[in-house]
Amino acid sequence: MTTGVRRRMGVEERRQQLIGVALDLFSRRSPDDVSIDEIASAAGISRPLVYHYFPGKLSLYEAALKRASDDLASRFVEPHEGPLGERLLRVMGRYFDFVDDHGPGFSALMRGGPAVGSSTTNALIDSVRQAAYDQIMSHLRVENPPARLELVVRSWISLAESTALIWLDGRRIPRAELEVQLVQDFAALAAVAAAHDTELATLLSDLLKQEPGDGPFTDLAARLLSLASS
Amino acid sequence: MTTGVRRRMGVEERRQQLIGVALDLFSRRSPDDVSIDEIASAAGISRPLVYHYFPGKLSLYEAALKRASDDLASRFVEPHEGPLGERLLRVMGRYFDFVDDHGPGFSALMRGGPAVGSSTTNALIDSVRQAAYDQIMSHLRVENPPARLELVVRSWISLAESTALIWLDGRRIPRAELEVQLVQDFAALAAVAAAHDTELATLLSDLLKQEPGDGPFTDLAARLLSLASS
Repeated sequence: MTTGVRRRMGVEERRQQLIGVALDLFSRRSPDDVSIDEIASAAGISRPLVYHYFPGKLSLYEAALKRASDDLASRFVEPHEGPLGERLLRVMGRYFDFVDDHGPGFSALMRGGPAVGSSTTNALIDSVRQAAYDQIMSHLRVENPPARLELVVRSWISLAESTALIWLDGRRIPRAELEVQLVQDFAALAAVAAAHDTELATLLSDLLKQEPGDGPFTDLAARLLSLASS
Repeated sequence: MTTGVRRRMGVEERRQQLIGVALDLFSRRSPDDVSIDEIASAAGISRPLVYHYFPGKLSLYEAALKRASDDLASRFVEPHEGPLGERLLRVMGRYFDFVDDHGPGFSALMRGGPAVGSSTTNALIDSVRQAAYDQIMSHLRVENPPARLELVVRSWISLAESTALIWLDGRRIPRAELEVQLVQDFAALAAVAAAHDTELATLLSDLLKQEPGDGPFTDLAARLLSLASS
């Protein structure tokens, strides 16, 4: 279809192309260090034309972040079948894939640099956290979560974020190990909370009964028991 | 010394008074909702005089945050004696006292609202996290922490932050319970990491040997064992 003359893109097509180019640049370097000139050059258009589609760098950044947020939230979706520990482990794999692909941008955003803290960016971060929370609750099959379960799930989500940020800073621990560890952290934090709350203890022990003998939860229990008795 | 005529304050004394007044207001309501007029009125001086001491609201906010950060960091200091679990539990008590006293300001800051995300505020938040990290390492008596121990400590610090934020949002769980739970979360996260790393396992089991039979760590182990065997 191309004939040597560059085909003209429609407005929405051009916007989507610019978002893709910007997301790629914002992922690979801190967004503060990416200029509109670079984005224009990578997209093969002039700087004024970029401004024709987006009023400024912040609006382009927010559009790129929206695409990345939708992408990340979609990775939390997992079929409701098979052992819970294995489902969560698959999600952790896709989560670290995302973090790996967007490292510098993810760090800059989550560490809250000056350029990235708008109310829109904060709302997008919160929407991803809420998507993670909703997915976990749906897998636990709990409709009206008690306050202590909500605390476990929400605080574990922040633990997963900080673990990913620390991993990005030097990558000194293999990510596969951290993926397993986060699944086990979830079980450990739930167990600590359950030790203070009988409703949660009942829920947790029912869930554990469905786990296979060779899954990450049972593996953890065996390792903790051997630590405790050494 | 006062004779009915208001005593004139020196420059530094006036600055310190304004910081105190501002910190009080910024703690009780979201900093975005506090105006310079209110600060002037609470300090009993005119609005232009506030600007004489601080060029704008951000600089006064940063000075108030510096005082709050120093206060919080000082609460992490604990004598190096007695069981580790009890030391950490006392620190958690002082940490929740601080969070309780500065609730709305703490939430607004840590949730990263638009007005509060400057590079100075981010640096102050990081300095408090680093103070917590340094204190914990000094109590663990580890000089060159392995990467996995650093991860446990730093990610637990972020867990303590998110737990405090979730607690502030409705206070649905008694704070005393969360203080014990965070101490036990520390042990649980360390145990999960130790299950993957023999160096950490040795360190942890040496530390646990010094814990008393009725401390929060031993209490946790007993509760986890009873959960696992139920």
